[in-house]
Amino acid sequence: MSAPLAEARGYGVTSTDKPTDFSVQSYKLKTPGPRDVTLSIEYCGVCGSDVHTVTGGWGPLSSDFVVPGHEVVGTVTFVGEDAKDEFKVGQRVGVGAQVFSCLDCKRCKTDNEQYCPKQVDTYNAPYPDGVLAQGGYSSAIRVDKQFVFPIPDALESEKVGPLFCAGATVYSPLVRNDVGPGKRVGIVGIGGLGHLAVQFAKALGANVTVFSHSISKATDAIRLGADKFISTADKDFASKFEGDDELDFILITADANAIPIGDLMSTLKLHHKAVAVGIPDANTPWEIPGMALLGNGSCLGGSHIGSKKEILAMLDLAAEKGVRPWVDQILPMSEAGKAIQGVKDNKVRYRYVLKQDLV
Amino acid sequence: MSAPLAEARGYGVTSTDKPTDFSVQSYKLKTPGPRDVTLSIEYCGVCGSDVHTVTGGWGPLSSDFVVPGHEVVGTVTFVGEDAKDEFKVGQRVGVGAQVFSCLDCKRCKTDNEQYCPKQVDTYNAPYPDGVLAQGGYSSAIRVDKQFVFPIPDALESEKVGPLFCAGATVYSPLVRNDVGPGKRVGIVGIGGLGHLAVQFAKALGANVTVFSHSISKATDAIRLGADKFISTADKDFASKFEGDDELDFILITADANAIPIGDLMSTLKLHHKAVAVGIPDANTPWEIPGMALLGNGSCLGGSHIGSKKEILAMLDLAAEKGVRPWVDQILPMSEAGKAIQGVKDNKVRYRYVLKQDLV
Repeated sequence: MSAPLAEARGYGVTSTDKPTDFSVQSYKLKTPGPRDVTLSIEYCGVCGSDVHTVTGGWGPLSSDFVVPGHEVVGTVTFVGEDAKDEFKVGQRVGVGAQVFSCLDCKRCKTDNEQYCPKQVDTYNAPYPDGVLAQGGYSSAIRVDKQFVFPIPDALESEKVGPLFCAGATVYSPLVRNDVGPGKRVGIVGIGGLGHLAVQFAKALGANVTVFSHSISKATDAIRLGADKFISTADKDFASKFEGDDELDFILITADANAIPIGDLMSTLKLHHKAVAVGIPDANTPWEIPGMALLGNGSCLGGSHIGSKKEILAMLDLAAEKGVRPWVDQILPMSEAGKAIQGVKDNKVRYRYVLKQDLV
Repeated sequence: MSAPLAEARGYGVTSTDKPTDFSVQSYKLKTPGPRDVTLSIEYCGVCGSDVHTVTGGWGPLSSDFVVPGHEVVGTVTFVGEDAKDEFKVGQRVGVGAQVFSCLDCKRCKTDNEQYCPKQVDTYNAPYPDGVLAQGGYSSAIRVDKQFVFPIPDALESEKVGPLFCAGATVYSPLVRNDVGPGKRVGIVGIGGLGHLAVQFAKALGANVTVFSHSISKATDAIRLGADKFISTADKDFASKFEGDDELDFILITADANAIPIGDLMSTLKLHHKAVAVGIPDANTPWEIPGMALLGNGSCLGGSHIGSKKEILAMLDLAAEKGVRPWVDQILPMSEAGKAIQGVKDNKVRYRYVLKQDLV
């Protein structure tokens, strides 16, 4: 068999001052290893993380350019010797927001590799050997098999990408907080993350309440499967949750500072939890009134993407129950700047996907 | 038997602009009921809540004056017909930071009466019938028996007061988060709350690490029983907690905004919790960087005093294991203003107690 690909070309941003100016860049792929899978990319979803990164909201670029994209869909073109048990050339696979972990620590060994202290993001991050990881707005990517996921036949290539980051990001906290039959779950915000969270919470069997300040999302919330829509613009909204109506869990997918967090937390059962997955820019902390968590001893938690085990289970559930990202537009990859601008302006309903045009 | 007392006299503040100007006020006690216990007050601890209230930090005064104090120690002078099963005249008892709950809801019926939606604070709050609850810087108080606690013989009257609020406030989250043998617990801040938290965490059998920005507290931390003292002024302090050294639980008794919260949260095990019990003024929210909870999926929770069941268990544990509030000074009640100023200026090590001088 031939040697694995050495280089890729991708659409990169060279300055956070010009976050929509993408230019074609050539760069070295990950140093090949026996566990690696190389894929040619067909589609890549456009995630809010891409916007935070190219605008510098989460910090500076880690090199001269960054190629974003961590909702990657492609076809396997090369399989390392130790990955042949799981993958074969021609197979349809996805890659999400993580490309490395030590695979040796307690967290890695308990299906929590997304919390490995040595984890490497899919782009704007260096591998331990110094090679820079670049993302999926590109021709190809090479990744350790732990971070490559076979795609069930029922899921279409052009729509499945957003599951690998947005899907995993909402699915993992739902299942880790026992969302299922008999549970009452709140989903805050209907956007790229929230529209998947509603579908997955329903697919898991829970009763779902959507909270949004935008009454215009009510119809979509119900179409996505929500049992109830609550406008947080209504000042008394929290008073509707008493006794048996209190919630078991809340997933906050919107900017936590744009919602009345104290009222929201008061809708939880005693000592229950809300998890926030929409991470604001680094210089914009969440502002939590001290009293917000006091009335029912609630707590506000964080969560980071999903483990391979969770992502495989999520894909099966999506295939079985019809969970699908609502893809607003499929743009050629060369129009990445337009997609970034659309997400930044909050125009997307609810995900853009880029289609390969480099190869 | 004679009728129960109708009125009391107490040291009250009439304006949040003059939080140390106390004057003697006369007022009506709670409307008597068959479950009530009336006590003459001997001592009352001075709590940070008293300062937040008289300075207006938690909002305006609810009437012309407020008599603070919710670490009340006294002697029973009258027992209602339905309280005779538990109390008798002459008995030594305490009252904490709560004087009413509905006793009928799910929370009340599961030993969570401190989270009853109808709960009434010990002062600056109205009973359902409109009578204002006033606190323990006073001659007497009348309270439903649910909120009155017999004092074990081993605990001295002049030092036990702080257990009824500060003690309960730290004990409840410790036991509700399984602090005990084999658990590694962090206590943040050594003050009125923290110095009791360290003692209770040790009494419960845990391994205790104290975090403080003030290296001057290191000696006290060790005397209180801490296994380790960590200065949060050391920029690398969080790097000392890896693998088996990660903490099971953190109790934050200091101002959460004065500590590097992201670093602190990173010392927790995956998906474990910190609870903050020092509630800042209403207009000073906690500022939590979005990334702070992400690295290990941790969560930040709140907690509200303790239930009767917990307070009785706490008193027994304190009696058995020698947990004692460190009382800096015992001042005559007429010097309440001096005590408030001392707490406000953070001079107290670690609690003032007021002694009765009105009767």
